[in-house]
Amino acid sequence: MKVVFIGSGNVATHLAQKFQSIGINVSQIYSRTSTNAEALAKLVGATFTTEMSEIETDADYYFYALNDNSLKRFLSKFDLPNAIHLHTAGSISIRIFEKYSTKYGVFYPLQTFSKNKEIDFSTIPICIEASSSEIQLKLEELAKLLTKNVYLTNSEQRKKIHLAAVFACNFTNYMYDMASVILEDAGVSFEIIKPLIKETADKVMTLPPFNAQTGPAVRYDENTIDKHLELLKSQSELKKIYKLLTTDINKRHQKK
Amino acid sequence: MKVVFIGSGNVATHLAQKFQSIGINVSQIYSRTSTNAEALAKLVGATFTTEMSEIETDADYYFYALNDNSLKRFLSKFDLPNAIHLHTAGSISIRIFEKYSTKYGVFYPLQTFSKNKEIDFSTIPICIEASSSEIQLKLEELAKLLTKNVYLTNSEQRKKIHLAAVFACNFTNYMYDMASVILEDAGVSFEIIKPLIKETADKVMTLPPFNAQTGPAVRYDENTIDKHLELLKSQSELKKIYKLLTTDINKRHQKK
Repeated sequence: MKVVFIGSGNVATHLAQKFQSIGINVSQIYSRTSTNAEALAKLVGATFTTEMSEIETDADYYFYALNDNSLKRFLSKFDLPNAIHLHTAGSISIRIFEKYSTKYGVFYPLQTFSKNKEIDFSTIPICIEASSSEIQLKLEELAKLLTKNVYLTNSEQRKKIHLAAVFACNFTNYMYDMASVILEDAGVSFEIIKPLIKETADKVMTLPPFNAQTGPAVRYDENTIDKHLELLKSQSELKKIYKLLTTDINKRHQKK
Repeated sequence: MKVVFIGSGNVATHLAQKFQSIGINVSQIYSRTSTNAEALAKLVGATFTTEMSEIETDADYYFYALNDNSLKRFLSKFDLPNAIHLHTAGSISIRIFEKYSTKYGVFYPLQTFSKNKEIDFSTIPICIEASSSEIQLKLEELAKLLTKNVYLTNSEQRKKIHLAAVFACNFTNYMYDMASVILEDAGVSFEIIKPLIKETADKVMTLPPFNAQTGPAVRYDENTIDKHLELLKSQSELKKIYKLLTTDINKRHQKK
């Protein structure tokens, strides 16, 4: 089995490395920026190119790890070989391929990838969608080589899963970041909050988040809330977030 | 060593159980609600009372696990024995005791406690503050029986630590909760997002959260952001949060 990657960002990097580590031949990396393409090609023992005309045409799978616009632009210029074409994005419909190919699908790993952080693939959910049941079967087999968590999801569901991931990952990380800003201002190391971050994540492995909610907002402890707003008086952005989330948490817990 | 607890909420429950488990005599639980007091008393083999006049006066430590207003009200009515008086709250100043006693302090465990979730105390940071260096030493010794993470913090720092905890825990949990709402709407199990939640927390154990930030907001991927806002068009509260956090994340990452 031979695989070509179009794109060399975080998703491509982790996916290509994983494939290579289980013996799948990652043959070539294409990227518009040669430094990125070269770096990833080196990691997985592939060749690289920045020229569309040099992309190998005999691979079994083409993995596209590009954003919406770049993918559209690429597909409109590239003459797709008679292989299986897969994008790896949460928010892009499977239909993006339909004008260009008959064999295509989606292979979306639901995880946050950073270049400098290794990852255990075995529990990462991979969301699969395919242009036919035959290809779906192939994608399921391929995904099961990487993880035990394979999900069949349509494009509408996948879009919502990606949106949920923005809340559970990107926005959550921003909450950590704001905590770090506040601690820095207090002259206290970020270390102090790490066990709390761990436990907060750990709790929702067994409790629904609604039941795990604690803090001044849920019990509307006005005294504490006022003290916090006073502390944030010169940080208008943080204050806005604090007010909005406190109001919403309180509303949600009064409702039930 | 003999300890009395005033209050029987989540903090009191976890702290009293931990003390009892390491052989410290938790002698009595006072609470205004007899069911709570009785439940905790049973757990730790203590007596309980709902009458101030029946509170034992010969304990070494009185632990107050009450909110701001309840603590004020209690102290104004209770004739404090010549023991060490400790509150366990993040946002209450140590000075709340100064009119009533000469021996007092703060013993604040920085963690999220839920009654139905057991917790490993050994890594929980405990923030200590005391009315004298002699009492400080005693509190450090006591805290070290529970955890290896003992911090000396003044009331101003502690207030900020508590505020940081609201972001890193309460608001973070609300992000999980909103993710669960979105997934439910998509007909997808919350299970799918758990590995992402774990990894998001795990990442900031080694990377500063600023460096761990990923997602459409940080790279201002307008296409994806627009799709998400469209998905949220009938959920005005979620949409407001999405817009605010996306703007703020983008601003913060353009700055640097």
